[in-house]
Order: sequence, then C-alpha cells, then structure tokens
Amino acid sequence: MAATELNRRTLANALRVLSMDAVQQAGSGHPGAPLGMADIAEVLWRDQLRHNPANPAWPNRDRFVLSNGHGSMLLYSLLHLSGYDLPIEELKNFRQLHSRTPGHPEYGYTPGVETTTGPLGQGLANAVGMALAEQILAAQFNRPDHDIINHHTYAFVGDGCLMEGISHEVCSLAGTLGLGKLVVVYDDNGISIDGEVEGWFSDDTPARFRAYGWQVIEAVDGHDAAAIARALVVARQETAAPTLICCKTTIGFGAPNKAGSHECHGAPLGADEIAATRAALDWPHGPFEVPDSVYADWDGRARGAALEQDWQQRLEAYRTANPALCAELERRLAGDLPADWDHLRNDLIERTQQAARTQASRKSSQLLLEALGPVLPELLGGSADLAPSNLTQWAGSVAVTADAPAGNYIHYGVREFGMSAIMNGLALHGGFIPYGGTFLMFTEYARNAVRMAALMGLRTVFVYTHDSIGLGEDGPTHQPIEQIPSLRQTPNLDTWRPCDDTETAMAWCCALERSDGPSALVLSRQNLPAEARSTLQAQQIRRGGYVLRDCAATPELILLATGSEVALAQAGADALTAAGVAVRVVSLPCVERFEREDQRYRDAVLPPNVRARLAIEMAQPDAWYRYVGLDGAVMGISSFGESAPADDLLQHFGFTLPHLLEKAQAVLALNGKTAATGA
Amino acid sequence: MAATELNRRTLANALRVLSMDAVQQAGSGHPGAPLGMADIAEVLWRDQLRHNPANPAWPNRDRFVLSNGHGSMLLYSLLHLSGYDLPIEELKNFRQLHSRTPGHPEYGYTPGVETTTGPLGQGLANAVGMALAEQILAAQFNRPDHDIINHHTYAFVGDGCLMEGISHEVCSLAGTLGLGKLVVVYDDNGISIDGEVEGWFSDDTPARFRAYGWQVIEAVDGHDAAAIARALVVARQETAAPTLICCKTTIGFGAPNKAGSHECHGAPLGADEIAATRAALDWPHGPFEVPDSVYADWDGRARGAALEQDWQQRLEAYRTANPALCAELERRLAGDLPADWDHLRNDLIERTQQAARTQASRKSSQLLLEALGPVLPELLGGSADLAPSNLTQWAGSVAVTADAPAGNYIHYGVREFGMSAIMNGLALHGGFIPYGGTFLMFTEYARNAVRMAALMGLRTVFVYTHDSIGLGEDGPTHQPIEQIPSLRQTPNLDTWRPCDDTETAMAWCCALERSDGPSALVLSRQNLPAEARSTLQAQQIRRGGYVLRDCAATPELILLATGSEVALAQAGADALTAAGVAVRVVSLPCVERFEREDQRYRDAVLPPNVRARLAIEMAQPDAWYRYVGLDGAVMGISSFGESAPADDLLQHFGFTLPHLLEKAQAVLALNGKTAATGA
Repeated sequence: MAATELNRRTLANALRVLSMDAVQQAGSGHPGAPLGMADIAEVLWRDQLRHNPANPAWPNRDRFVLSNGHGSMLLYSLLHLSGYDLPIEELKNFRQLHSRTPGHPEYGYTPGVETTTGPLGQGLANAVGMALAEQILAAQFNRPDHDIINHHTYAFVGDGCLMEGISHEVCSLAGTLGLGKLVVVYDDNGISIDGEVEGWFSDDTPARFRAYGWQVIEAVDGHDAAAIARALVVARQETAAPTLICCKTTIGFGAPNKAGSHECHGAPLGADEIAATRAALDWPHGPFEVPDSVYADWDGRARGAALEQDWQQRLEAYRTANPALCAELERRLAGDLPADWDHLRNDLIERTQQAARTQASRKSSQLLLEALGPVLPELLGGSADLAPSNLTQWAGSVAVTADAPAGNYIHYGVREFGMSAIMNGLALHGGFIPYGGTFLMFTEYARNAVRMAALMGLRTVFVYTHDSIGLGEDGPTHQPIEQIPSLRQTPNLDTWRPCDDTETAMAWCCALERSDGPSALVLSRQNLPAEARSTLQAQQIRRGGYVLRDCAATPELILLATGSEVALAQAGADALTAAGVAVRVVSLPCVERFEREDQRYRDAVLPPNVRARLAIEMAQPDAWYRYVGLDGAVMGISSFGESAPADDLLQHFGFTLPHLLEKAQAVLALNGKTAATGA
Repeated sequence: MAATELNRRTLANALRVLSMDAVQQAGSGHPGAPLGMADIAEVLWRDQLRHNPANPAWPNRDRFVLSNGHGSMLLYSLLHLSGYDLPIEELKNFRQLHSRTPGHPEYGYTPGVETTTGPLGQGLANAVGMALAEQILAAQFNRPDHDIINHHTYAFVGDGCLMEGISHEVCSLAGTLGLGKLVVVYDDNGISIDGEVEGWFSDDTPARFRAYGWQVIEAVDGHDAAAIARALVVARQETAAPTLICCKTTIGFGAPNKAGSHECHGAPLGADEIAATRAALDWPHGPFEVPDSVYADWDGRARGAALEQDWQQRLEAYRTANPALCAELERRLAGDLPADWDHLRNDLIERTQQAARTQASRKSSQLLLEALGPVLPELLGGSADLAPSNLTQWAGSVAVTADAPAGNYIHYGVREFGMSAIMNGLALHGGFIPYGGTFLMFTEYARNAVRMAALMGLRTVFVYTHDSIGLGEDGPTHQPIEQIPSLRQTPNLDTWRPCDDTETAMAWCCALERSDGPSALVLSRQNLPAEARSTLQAQQIRRGGYVLRDCAATPELILLATGSEVALAQAGADALTAAGVAVRVVSLPCVERFEREDQRYRDAVLPPNVRARLAIEMAQPDAWYRYVGLDGAVMGISSFGESAPADDLLQHFGFTLPHLLEKAQAVLALNGKTAATGA
C-alpha cells in the first residue's frame, strides 16, 4: 500500500531524525548523507526492495549496499524501522564498543548489513559481484518455469565512490557483462569533504556511464518520491544493462543552516541545528522516539514473510521437478563442500606426493584445479588479464559472458582491485567460491579489497604467481620484496607460499575448507623440485609449519624456509650434515596457521632451546626475527630487485649454497658451536 | 625535414626490427607493442617531440612517457636511434644484469627514460603530474614576453592502462584542471594478454574521455604517418583541455603470422617469424645492424641542440629581465633547499621544543607547514578530499585551478592512487616538492605508487593521518593495523611515526632534505604530550632512534616505542623507576634511518647485552622482534580494530599502564630479573 506523498516525507523524516540524533549522541559520525538520501531510501525500502526483515539470510532477497558507508545511520535506521533485529537501544549505542551499530556498516555485526563499507568505491564493486553472482547462479540453476534465483542488487553511491578508480573498473565490466539486475543510485549532492566538488570532479557522469553501456536515468529529483519510484521502475524494466539513477539531492536536507554544505558531512549537527531541523521537519518527538503510526507504516515484516513464503513454495516445486539440482543449489548456498571431501582431499594429497613432479607451483595450482574443478562447480575463477601466466584456467573453464552467463570463469581484464572486490561480492552473495589471479606484485593495486575480505571473513582465494626475484627479467617493478610479509601481517588472511606440488595442493585444500576468511596462494613462476615426505608429514602441511627433514640428535641448527627456498635449505642441510652438523629443516608454508597451532606443537617444531636458527626467504626479512631472534639470522632481500635472468639474480642476491653455508657458520659461531663445515 | 611516407615506414621498421631482435636475444620480453606503435613513435619522435638527446635533463624538454612499459624496447630503440647515450651494445644486453636496458623502463638507469613504467596506468598518471607541473610552473614563473616554461607531455597508453582504475582518477582530474599540454596516444589494438579485449573491455573510450572534458581525436590509423602527424597538430592546437588520440593499430604489425594476435604480446616471435618479418618489412640487415642512412635520418642531436640553445638564449634574456626570479627558478629546478636551510631547521626545531605544545601530530604537521610554507614555495600540497582532517592546508595555501594555475595546493578529490602517482610525476618533472594527504588506511589504495616513488628515489612526502585505533569511532575499516609495518618494509621509503611536536617537525625537515627517496609521515588524530629533550636529543631525532630517557646504571629493561605510545612508555618508565627498576626509553620515530646509522650508534642505543626489551606500538607486532628478540616482548595488535571511542579502545586492546607493567614484569622475569614493581 503506497503511502501518500505527505506520509512519505514523514516516513523519510523518521530516518533523518534517528540518524542525526544518533550521530549527535555518539559525538561523531556523518549526518549529511542520511538526511540527503532519506527520501530515496524510503521509496526503495518500503515499496520496492524485496526482503524479509525476519530472515536476512533468505537466499533470493534483493541485495542492498550502502557504498557510501559513512552514512551508516541511514542503513541502521532503515533496518530498525523495517523490523530487523536491531532495537532502538542499538541506535542509541551508535559507535560504541560491541554495539551492533559500528561507525561504518560491518558485515556480521548487524542483521541486514550485506557487506562492510566505508572504503569508498568498494561497496559498489561488491554490488557488481552480487549482481554477477545472481546472473551466473540463475543461469546455472533456473529451469523453464522455475525462476528460483531472481533478485535485484541495489547500491547507493556518492561522489566519492564515483571518483575512486575502482568505480571505473567495476562499472566498465558490469556494462560488458550486461548485469541487468544491478541498479545504482548516485547521490549527486555536489559536496565532498573539501567542499563543492566542481573544483575537483567535473565529469559528465551520465555520459561516462553510457560509455560503459549502462542505462542512465538522469536528473531525478532525489527529494521527489514519485520521481524516484518511476526511475526505479524504469531501471528494472531494463534487463540487459545495469542502470545508474542520478539523483540530485541536498546534503543534510532539512537542516535549515547546514543543508547543502560540507559542514554537515562528517560531524554532528549540534544541539541548536538539531532543534532547528526538528522544527523545520515538523518532527515534534524527542530523541529516539518514533510514533507507533510511523513504525506501523515502516514495518516490512508481513510483506517480507509473504515474499519469502512464496519463494519457499516455488523452491518446493523446483525440488520436486529437479531434486538433484535443488540439493546441489542448497549445498552451494550453504557453502558446504561435497560430502566426500575429506576422502577427495586425502586421496589427492597422496597421489600428488607420489607423483613427485618437478614443476612451478603455479603449474601445480593449475593441476589442482584440473583435479578438483569437476567436483567443485562452485569454483568461479578468473584473472586480471593474466590467465596464461597465472594458470588460473583449467580444461573445464568456460568464460562468463553477457550472452552466456552460465560459465565458471571471469575474464576480469586489467582490473586487479575491481576483480578482488567483485570476488568479495561473489562470496558475500553465496553459491560460489571465487578465486582470481594476478602477479603477486599487483596485490598492491588491490590491497584494500584483500583486507576487506579478511575483515569480513570471506572465503575468497587470491592466486598470486611470480612470487619473487625468481621471475627474472621483468625486473623490480614486478619482483615482490615486501609483498609477502605485508600479506602475512593482515589479520585473518592465510598466506601460503608452498615449496612444491604437495604443499600447493594442500594449500588449495585448506583455502577451500576455510569458511571464515580468505587465503592468498603465493606461487612461483619457476620450477620447484618435489620434496620427499611421510604420510604424516604430508598431513602436517595443513598445520602451516612442520619438520620436513630432521636429524637424529637435538638439532644444532634449524633452517627455516618457504617456497622456492626450501630446496636451497635442503641443499644446505645436505652439506652441513655431511660436515657433521645436526640440522633440522622446517618448512613454513603458512605462518598464520602455524601460529594458530598450540604452543606444544610449535615448540616441538622449533625447540626453544635451539637458538641457532637461519631463516631463508627471498623477501623482506624483518618479520622472520620472531622465529630466529637476536641469536639467529635471516637470508632475505631488503632492496629492490633487478632485471636479469633468474639464475643471475639468485647469485646477485646471494641465494646460493656457499652463501647459505657462510651464514649458517656465522649463526653456529654466534651460538658457541664449532663451525665444522669447510664451505 | 619531413621524410617521405616510404622513408617513414623504413625508419619505423628500424624500431620494429631492433625491438624484435632484442626480445629474441633476451629470450623474453614484449615485441607486440613496439611493432604496433612504431609508426606513431616515428612521427612523434622525429618530427614533433622537442628534446635534446645530448641533454636529457634540459628542463624545458617535452616529456615522453611509455605508460605501457612492457613495450620498453620501443623506447630503447627510440633513444638509441635518436642519439641518446645508449649504444647498440646496451640493446644487445636487453634484460641482462646491470644493463641500461632493463625489462621495463627504469628511471635513473637509462638516459631519456622519464619515469619507471610497467605497473599499468601509473605512467599515464605520472604524465598527468608532469603536465600539471608544467602548467603550474609556467604560471608561477613565466612573464610577458618570457615563456620560459613551455613544453608538452606525451604519453603512450594501451588497453591495460585504460582498464586500470587509476586512469579514471587521473584523466578525470586532468580534464577538470584543463591540462592543455597533455597529449595521450591510445594504442587501440584490441588485444590484451587474455586475447581479444572485447570480451572484457567494451567501453566507448572516446565518449568516456569526452565525459572528462578532453578533446578526443577518434579513429586515427596508427599506421598512417600523415594521419598521425595531423592528429598531433590538432592536439597541440587545443590549449585548454588535454587530448586523447585514439589510434587503431595492429599489435605485432609486420609479423606475417602473429600480427593481430596476443601471441606476439609477451614472448619472443621466434626465429622463423623473425625471418618472415624481416622479409615482409623488406629489411635485409642482420640483427642489430642499422644502415648509416637510417641512423642519419633518425639522429636528433642537431635539432635538439638547436632547440635547447634557443631556450638558453631566452633564459638569459629572462635572467636579465628578472634576475631574482630566474635564480629562484634555477634553485627550484635543481631541487636545492634555500641557502639558509640548516639555520631555518635548527631554529625551528629549537622553537618547537621550547613551545612544549600538547597537540595531535597532524596539527604539528600543519604548524610546520605554516612555518616553512612561506620560505618553501616549491611545496605543492594536496589531499585526497581530506584537507580538513589531514590538515594539509596552511594559511598560504592557494588552490590550483584550470583558470588560476599559479597556486600551491591541489584538491585531488577522492583519488588516493591517482594523487600519489601524480605526485610522483610532479617530482619527476622538477620544480616542486609534492606532499599529499589521506588517512593512513588509504595508503592501501595507493600502495604501488608509494612503492614506485621509493623505487625511483623521488622526493615525495606522503602525509598519513589517523594512524591507529586512536582514531576511535570510525572503526576497523579506518583503523590501521598492518599498514605501518607494511610501509616500513618498503625499500628506500622512510616511514616516520613521530611522538610529539618536535619529532614531527624533524620528520618533516628530514623528508624535505631527502633528495633520493620518499617519506611517509604517519600522524595521529589525537593529542600527544610534548616530551622533554636536551638539544642533543632533539638533534638525534634525525638518526631515527635515540635514547629519550635514561637511567643512571646499565638498564635492566629497555622500552621501545613510537608515536602515541611513547607517552605510555614514559608512564611505564615512571612507575618502574619508582619501583627500583633501571629503565631506558628509546623513541624510534624512523626505523629505516636508525638502521642506516652505524652499528656503534645502534648498539649504544640498544646495548646488545640488555635483552630485557619491550616494544610498544599499536600496530601489527611481528617486525619488532628484530629489536626485542626471543627474550623480549611486543605490545601490539594482531587483530582488526573496533568502532568505539578511543579511550575505550585503548582499554580493550590493552594499551594501558597496568598492562604495560604486567608485560614488563614478564620480560624482566624471563631475563632472570626480580620483578620488583607492585603492578
């Protein structure tokens, strides 16, 4: 039942007042965007958004993303008023420790928050990912007369989102892929933090989006509910292209003295202006007081329950007609691996170990995809235009296109940041395990999307090849130095740097099993020899660190290494053992997992009383001192790389057996041991 | 003297053959772009580019940027043939260790290479920065009848550059700022590494650039020299807007079997195809053999010398008319600080120390700008739309606009990556010391541009405020955890995290003095108390680490801290000293500079025999073990932040005096000392 225009404004004002009061109470926050976008939000949420406040996990709900996440109080007000489990006390606790209303919307904290936003442009990218997930999942699972996956994705964006480069990457790709169920509403208020945007943002935004192949609805009055409603209907009528609705709005609408100015963007309005705004909006109620009539008009629970019930009935019909397909859909939406997963994995690891192949770990990764791709149709691959180098395609890879969206591989183009944030959107939507490749160096272009995956706890798999100076001639712009330690320092990200085929296979398996966070697979361009392992050792790979080679007695020296340097450590251990030194080699393919093991296991691998330790990794060395301390040493690289053939670079940077033996001698000497070798 | 069309093709073929032969000899590289763009490059470089091969440092030369840097052999061939100091032996050594022809163009390795390119899109951004530098410098220094700064900036870009988000950021801003002397040539060959780009890049690129306010010259045949020449003339006729010339080309032009395919993009053509290409191009000469007649037609030295000589004469006339201005221009182009700099700095440091102000280090930074801004007009500031938060504006800041380009402050908009790469272009051009601000978190959006500044050794100053959980309510999306250690791991970047007003002032001074690399200033949102210091201690700040507080005897415990945690360390030292523990406090505002000090100084600050050490920093802790070893401890943060008032967060994450004392006790106990305090 559509409210009258007068009622609509009152209902929108409820959003405005809750938002400004919560920001005022918190003493910080952003009132401008909620006041400016309240009318648009009211129309979308009350009339058009198909969602069920009682079940934020309903798979076929429309997705809503507030990409201008600093306007979080708009979203919290919407969720509260619509009937989500977000009581008024939580709004009063805006921005307080452990509240469900943090300063920016945080996925997992608040029912109904579809993604964490704040870092500008990425919410828009997540929305592109969600719309893409819907398009692919629908193509894979819908059947004639069974439109079981069929929903829209809506995103609100501000000037900031559209200035960010990632908006270009993802909107260009959304146009190419024809994401007809993506509707983006641009809050064109002409204001950003520095002031009036015309001095630094003078794009013809409608023309820009038309150049991407979008439908653009221009010059909508963002305070005219009827105009907004019409635009949303036109948006949904276009099914072959995404839609941008450009809404002219006034930031801080309703605040008599601060509306239209950047002063209301990022600070509380202040008591006087709040009183004046209440008067101007004709809102006589106190802070956090909402009349029952307003609550009643906002309550979306009955409509939501009916929507979901209708879908449930259609799901049952689908199940009857396509029982296996329905079970598979439900498995994928639940994020469960196949029932025989443990057997699959163990068998794969055993076969891989037996094969003893010498090959690049990027090639090992591709062979793993060949083995698991057929049984894991939820794997949705891609690369930022480096498929032939990253080896992210396998025999069963089928490109997703606008005309044929049922594939399993996205050609993301040269768009590392966009790819990574779209992958996050795919993972948030459900039904897929996204993986995507680029050179390890170019994780830097995508750095914050990787962090956002970790912050949200998403199962995304970043495939990073060409992992060190070992890539050779491309030179310092392409040779990672600080990138591996930088990834390792990211909370909740598992960074794997496997040393051979088996470690690569296990890294992939662990990444797929991990349902509460992303993994980065750091892979070599160059060949790596297969290491010998017992069945126990092969299983210990999943602990992140383990004894790969041991000595009979207590070790006099421990060599720690990852990836391509494990083979060098083994060569060093050969020479040192021959010279009578008791040496242990510890492989540490995933430091984060090793750190999650208990102290007892870690001490068994790295006995505290063995202080003669040498870590070897062709990367910035500082973080290794946590394992080698002041009595050990690290062979690493603290400068930039060079352009030359890989073997020349290994010599140049000292990753040679003689240099290792020299360092080992020095460490032994520092720890009062006789240096017995003749290196 | 313009060559005939027939000669033009022959001259372009010299570029083609040298490029394909060098890639073949190296066994790796990218022949496709050089073969495809050779005709364009021949017209631009031989006829229109105003440069002097004998003096690549001529200040008024046109700048040329190969943004698609993988096509480096095109540039090396151009430099060699034009008469730069790049002999044929260097081309034969393409991609070999210590050659002047690395895999991607590296600034500082090769005369005539204006910037390091390879990471896509950033060369274009550097070019925008160079054109912006020219526009501002011309507005500041030219006088009626004295056009002393007046040159163009040309950039070649490929599909990859235009897919990257940074292209949106910088081209949008270039349009707004009306950079009329920027000419970008788009190599529209329809091919990227994954294949034909239409599957992932279907933008109407001319329409997109018109939406940015650019002049666009469409559908130029990139193999028709006359058409290319006409387009370049039209480009230069437009003085109020940048120009994009869209050239249709064939990748690998001339290779009979591989032209037009991604097969020739990133691998040698192979001996057979090279022979076939030689035949198709009618080029009978052997590898690296160029006929004298071709050399003669390419030689740009006479023309270059005449161009520079003419400018030198005009410079002398300018000097006569405006002696002081001319001297100031030459000082700025040389990158010299004012003659009385040492006095200025020492006086400033002394006054700052005496003022003993309690304030946020971002505010200290602004006060420093107020003090130095008037005497350093080369300071060219800016912020990615966070001026009021970063405090990067001072009283003398004047915005640069298209109509009034003589200012000293750029409103970069919400474009962190674009800003950082434009800053690199400004620094490369000369005449400016660029600084730019954003929140520390959003260094992640710009990560690779920061790295490129370090790789190129540029004097750029990155101002990063809101440096820790101390920013409070904005929550984990905005609270840095791993960003400080990640910056510290970047080779050749100085990362400063000052603890008070005086350390902030010294950090700025060191950043300005540093002519061989960038600095990151990591600043607090919240207030920091002033620390007491002797004159010697104040001067020691520049060493990166120093004893801020000492005890009479050999220390039993060393507390190491940076930034806002220095005050906590001091409070801990107060309590421990009162309890009879001999405590030293070491402030480490710039770890990289401390590491550049000699062992003797470092050992004096951190005596090797004092192993009871506790490091305190509200950031990811791992790298601190290089200083505290296995017998010390670190108070850090390994998880993400939370949204709450700052004081609540300090409690929550344990940055409190009781917790510090507890950790100190544990460290003392581990080192066999009695834990005497009653905490």
